[in-house]
Amino acid sequence: MKIRKFTIADVALERSPGQEADIFVGNLVDERHGGPITIGYGRYGPGQSLTETMAVDDVMIILEGRLSVTTEAGTANAGPGDIVYMPKGESVTIYSHEEGALTAYVTYPHWRPSHA
Amino acid sequence: MKIRKFTIADVALERSPGQEADIFVGNLVDERHGGPITIGYGRYGPGQSLTETMAVDDVMIILEGRLSVTTEAGTANAGPGDIVYMPKGESVTIYSHEEGALTAYVTYPHWRPSHA
Repeated sequence: MKIRKFTIADVALERSPGQEADIFVGNLVDERHGGPITIGYGRYGPGQSLTETMAVDDVMIILEGRLSVTTEAGTANAGPGDIVYMPKGESVTIYSHEEGALTAYVTYPHWRPSHA
Repeated sequence: MKIRKFTIADVALERSPGQEADIFVGNLVDERHGGPITIGYGRYGPGQSLTETMAVDDVMIILEGRLSVTTEAGTANAGPGDIVYMPKGESVTIYSHEEGALTAYVTYPHWRPSHA
């Protein structure tokens, strides 16, 4: 695969698998492209939450808005430019606030086959 | 390793290895932490450039400013919120413009041992 540049307009967002919240994700690069990592954008509506045990190592970069990530160890609040690292095996609840949020994410390995 | 949240104030930036430009990088998570990926921030001064053959798969998210990435196939221009994916083995030249740039990056595998 060659160098690729993506912008939010490039992605087709769909509801995050396994839940009904207004949280939408879209892969730009994944298992279909032959490389080791998945890359995408995520969009969180206002006041949403998602609880998950991480099937992959997931790095989330907050581009707009604000997210809180709660684990048994406490809560981290993240805003624009912040990075949240969620290692495989950890259990997290991600909350959005009134302004919602836009994120970029990178996972290793690919999250879609890891959820299947 | 547990969930971690990082902000630019958490990183110790150092000159990008193997070159003399005003381009600084700082790992937040890397081979010292036991996971599969490296995570960090990069800061580009105005009008800098860096040419490299990628030793790892590298995802760069532009947080501030603007970067151009040139390969034999052409040039991609990236601004805030854009993602540039540079697969292992590709040769790139990254240019910053007058406003410089701030990036977040994720690599697989770890880039420091891959450069050694």
